[in-house]
Amino acid sequence: MTGAVLIAGLGPGDAAMVTHEVTAALAQATDVVGYIPYVARVAPRPGLTLHPTDNRVELDRATHALELASAGARVVVVSSGDPGVFAMASAVFEALEARPDLADVPVTVLPGITAMLAAAAAAGAPLGHDFCAINLSDNLKPFALVEKRLRLAAQADFAMGFYNPRSKSRPHQFARVLEILREECAPTRLITFARAVSTPEQVLRTVTLAEATEDMADMRTVVLVGNSATRRVGPYVYTPRSA
Amino acid sequence: MTGAVLIAGLGPGDAAMVTHEVTAALAQATDVVGYIPYVARVAPRPGLTLHPTDNRVELDRATHALELASAGARVVVVSSGDPGVFAMASAVFEALEARPDLADVPVTVLPGITAMLAAAAAAGAPLGHDFCAINLSDNLKPFALVEKRLRLAAQADFAMGFYNPRSKSRPHQFARVLEILREECAPTRLITFARAVSTPEQVLRTVTLAEATEDMADMRTVVLVGNSATRRVGPYVYTPRSA
Repeated sequence: MTGAVLIAGLGPGDAAMVTHEVTAALAQATDVVGYIPYVARVAPRPGLTLHPTDNRVELDRATHALELASAGARVVVVSSGDPGVFAMASAVFEALEARPDLADVPVTVLPGITAMLAAAAAAGAPLGHDFCAINLSDNLKPFALVEKRLRLAAQADFAMGFYNPRSKSRPHQFARVLEILREECAPTRLITFARAVSTPEQVLRTVTLAEATEDMADMRTVVLVGNSATRRVGPYVYTPRSA
Repeated sequence: MTGAVLIAGLGPGDAAMVTHEVTAALAQATDVVGYIPYVARVAPRPGLTLHPTDNRVELDRATHALELASAGARVVVVSSGDPGVFAMASAVFEALEARPDLADVPVTVLPGITAMLAAAAAAGAPLGHDFCAINLSDNLKPFALVEKRLRLAAQADFAMGFYNPRSKSRPHQFARVLEILREECAPTRLITFARAVSTPEQVLRTVTLAEATEDMADMRTVVLVGNSATRRVGPYVYTPRSA
């Protein structure tokens, strides 16, 4: 049997939002590798070894997956959402680049429903026209780059999705993000705070930019900012196709 | 029985890339409404009425779905990819806004795998850091707005996904898009042309910006442009997490 690494997206939380190909990949895996809470979403069974690891060890985890596959295992690396969007896929390719001896391991990415698009669906269609996705964390890049992208995105009138808006170690940067948005956008701009999307704890809250405060976001929140044409209709928020 | 509209994403083409909740929604539908080739992906069965309609009648189709649901039907509006990304969700909310008499119809969006993210997964992880999505069609907006967003996105060093890059009625605008990219980005910038993603006709081709020509894109192509750090490792293209 030849080993392989499949990097699979589990979607934002609800098991019904997983694709059929990801379900099939998990059924055929010998090993599942990933961050503890994501591995906890995979049902144990005989013949399957679970390898849950802590946060912030993405590169070690990726290398471990490639090594297991190189020895013949059929490894599924699990990510929340879509592995290609601020998740494990880039880490696996970084590990592959650093380890030419593992270059023969076949790597396949199985997409999933990313949090931003699940949040948009729950709210209506706020990303219904041109949009961008920005990771607000400065763990791996300077915050000045976040600020620059944010300002240019506002000037381009993109709708926006923000990942990792705020954490215990970075409590104040999201206030700066709101400040930049206030410099670039009208106070009526609509912002949706989507917490724990698709789980039983889901909370959606849409406010204007004038009403938004930094404490509306936390680690489990995805933030959606409409473009200048985004509006409400009944309980929904949407961006028209012409904007 | 109370009617409802569910707007469901069928993913880019492969039936295995559909989510379990979309499969369940289709199994419970009384009516399926959508563009001819998307409705053709739903298996006929007794008790299910299929309503395939032509392209460019999105608003009529959306209104029809709301009217059917208002009369008690359980309607699934099918989109390719994700209904919230350049697809039917915004059209349904536009129709709802135009017809206050239909405001009581419950509308739910079921996300799907959008073409850009399926293409990224097939190529590796070229959208692995901050990125934007731009619909290049000027059917519903001025092309000047496309040009403006493109230029600002390049200046922000976003990776980019382009939908509807080129059609028979707009054969030359994609050449202008490449021209703007050449003004803003290095000639070594990687571009992936992903045609018919996840179908048996899938073709992926990655070239540098210097090598890219307008005829590499057509109606069935999604174009992915890396950011300045996007690179190749073996047969894969990816963007590191730090860029």
